[in-house]
Amino acid sequence: SIDAERLLGRIRELGQIGRGSDGRLVRLAATDADKAGRDALVSWLRTAGLEVAVDRIGNIFGIWRTADNADEPPVLLGSHIDTVINAGIYDGCYGVLSGLEVIETLKAAGHAPARPIAVAAFTNEEGVRYAPDMMGSLVYAGGLPVEEALATVGSDETTLGAELERIGYKGSKEPGFLKPHAYVELHIEQGPVLEREGVPIGAVENLQGISWQRVTIKGEANHAGTTPMTMRRDAGHAAARVVTFLRDRARNANTPTVATVGCMSFEPNAINVIPSQATFTVDLRDPDEQRLQVEEAALAAYLKELAADEEVTISVERLARFEPVTFDRKIVELVEDAARRRGLASKRMTSGAGHDAQMIARIAPSAMIFVPSIGGISHNPREHTPDASAVAGANILLEVVSRLAAE
Amino acid sequence: SIDAERLLGRIRELGQIGRGSDGRLVRLAATDADKAGRDALVSWLRTAGLEVAVDRIGNIFGIWRTADNADEPPVLLGSHIDTVINAGIYDGCYGVLSGLEVIETLKAAGHAPARPIAVAAFTNEEGVRYAPDMMGSLVYAGGLPVEEALATVGSDETTLGAELERIGYKGSKEPGFLKPHAYVELHIEQGPVLEREGVPIGAVENLQGISWQRVTIKGEANHAGTTPMTMRRDAGHAAARVVTFLRDRARNANTPTVATVGCMSFEPNAINVIPSQATFTVDLRDPDEQRLQVEEAALAAYLKELAADEEVTISVERLARFEPVTFDRKIVELVEDAARRRGLASKRMTSGAGHDAQMIARIAPSAMIFVPSIGGISHNPREHTPDASAVAGANILLEVVSRLAAE
Ligand SMILES: NC(=O)NCCC(=O)O
Ligand SMILES: NC(=O)NCCC(=O)O
Repeated sequence: SIDAERLLGRIRELGQIGRGSDGRLVRLAATDADKAGRDALVSWLRTAGLEVAVDRIGNIFGIWRTADNADEPPVLLGSHIDTVINAGIYDGCYGVLSGLEVIETLKAAGHAPARPIAVAAFTNEEGVRYAPDMMGSLVYAGGLPVEEALATVGSDETTLGAELERIGYKGSKEPGFLKPHAYVELHIEQGPVLEREGVPIGAVENLQGISWQRVTIKGEANHAGTTPMTMRRDAGHAAARVVTFLRDRARNANTPTVATVGCMSFEPNAINVIPSQATFTVDLRDPDEQRLQVEEAALAAYLKELAADEEVTISVERLARFEPVTFDRKIVELVEDAARRRGLASKRMTSGAGHDAQMIARIAPSAMIFVPSIGGISHNPREHTPDASAVAGANILLEVVSRLAAE
Repeated sequence: SIDAERLLGRIRELGQIGRGSDGRLVRLAATDADKAGRDALVSWLRTAGLEVAVDRIGNIFGIWRTADNADEPPVLLGSHIDTVINAGIYDGCYGVLSGLEVIETLKAAGHAPARPIAVAAFTNEEGVRYAPDMMGSLVYAGGLPVEEALATVGSDETTLGAELERIGYKGSKEPGFLKPHAYVELHIEQGPVLEREGVPIGAVENLQGISWQRVTIKGEANHAGTTPMTMRRDAGHAAARVVTFLRDRARNANTPTVATVGCMSFEPNAINVIPSQATFTVDLRDPDEQRLQVEEAALAAYLKELAADEEVTISVERLARFEPVTFDRKIVELVEDAARRRGLASKRMTSGAGHDAQMIARIAPSAMIFVPSIGGISHNPREHTPDASAVAGANILLEVVSRLAAE
């Protein structure tokens, strides 16, 4: 079994890095806070005696190989250590630190695996600063050219490549340099299912499709006091109608579709000026590709109607689009089997969140292990997974990795 | 008659001060751009041989008095030179520069008025940076203690008093130091009525009530991908419902009520996080005080319902509240009379915008003169009044002032 104290201690320690004087944890990709988090991780990888490598998109790898297995494709574990704004401490970090923990445990036990085992922390999984999300793993899997990814301009107008250079994490390895034999990602569920059903382990068999768009509505600025209601071309009002349209549609459908408007800004954003422009993001998800396309089409049709009805012009920019992914059946069964052997119930489930596993699945058999999130809360400082659950998940990872590394 | 070229030239010159490299005119109260605009105005006042005074809230006065009339209460003209974000060149500036133009014209003609004539540029009329709007004239009229006004914290977290000090316009005169005999404000209509009806001069007999509030809705941040639609407490969605409620209600009522949401912001404002907080402003106006109260009550009742329905908490902060104002009948008749004598049609009308005249009406007989705004467009760079209309308005002001200064 893994060293529970060491794992939990590191999760808490990393959770303090990037915490502001206001108490909020914000460790956006390629910021100074991310650098501090990366530095801590690298020092733990070194202490564990692992070989550290960084690729051109800033993905960090800790590799354990021996003279006997060095030529075999490794078993890769991983996740990410970047966070959202005002984040919890588990999302991503739990998976990376558990991967390290599993390797240290096997090493200390004198284990001699048939293949190398490596742990990865992928760059910019959250996608808050740079879109798309899961960028480091997407590049690693060959889904986005590294030069294009490095040129991405962020929500703060910075460029990812320049920021990685600045914090010293633009590495030299070519993304994809380690071709994994298999990839396993341990993560908190971030949703309510496991806790509600009292099941400690999720064997994640698929992951829903993700569609991100940025919508810009242009109307006409005018005086709030003198412009009759019938003569307005109010971009803010048009945007509000999209927010309620998306919510009502997703809520009333008897499907798992989710729709979220997370970002919103008005121009000129003055109390007595009718908004000339509103810009907002749309996050649409569905486990079924067909249905996701239907939802995208419904939004497009609504925007067209709205433009005519409100006399505004509307443009849409695509920020990310990933189809649903089905994970490797054999690894999912290994997860179920490991849970059984440890006397824990497990449940096959769908991931609502995007994960690096979804990208690495393009180049290697992949699957995920979930543990419960209290109240289903994530992307929130109250995100919490009880210690016992976190430790149980890491031990399941240990079992699965031992099997995969013996193949 | 006034010197048309001099007036129009100054309007254009002032309209270049505070214009950014992006071409946008932004001269918010007590900023560096405002200082530059004030400096230009003061130099014109000095050139015209006027006595310049600045009071503790930064209102600027150019006073023309003679040995013969120095003890009489002056006729006061005025408006403001602060602007909104991405403004036109007429709003406020037209009235201040026309006041100066009228004084220069009378002086040059060897006129010897029975009372002093002064022109004022009141601080922070727009209210974009510091609420409430019409702040300088409100303080001048005794409606807000000067210390309280100077302590106002702005939308950019600055304090008005410190900013006035910084730009060198925290004067020493006590607000109210000149007790006017009468106050006349010339302004662009900023609405569509005069142009639509083909009437060149508005004799403004009243001004609608203004209610400004800031609403903060707190919900719960959670993951956009994993949180089922039925388990969300989405502050952004709740805010969107308020926007559509206000618009639908004002639009469907058969009344002149106007309702505007000009400012909006989400927290944490991240694409894959359900908004934990939404903050927005509500600008409600009606010429009828009773009806304005009914609209405020309807909003309050809706927010209460909404809080329960969306499981969010809602707080409301009042930013400004002014009752409708009726102007001085005698001055309104002087405006009509002056138009008649100049062979121009005029129309009695209500002001949709707030104006300094609304505040000064508390301490002196006051009224306003409107000229047409093309397309009814204001608070927009396309704000426009044809040269001939602007000159006609200034000549009406000249007539009215001559009469009032002779009383
Ligand atoms: N796991 C996670 O929060 N990923 C961020 C990408 C997403 O929005 O799903
Ligand atoms: N005239 C004018 O635009 N005043 C600003 C205050 C208001 O919003 O009415």
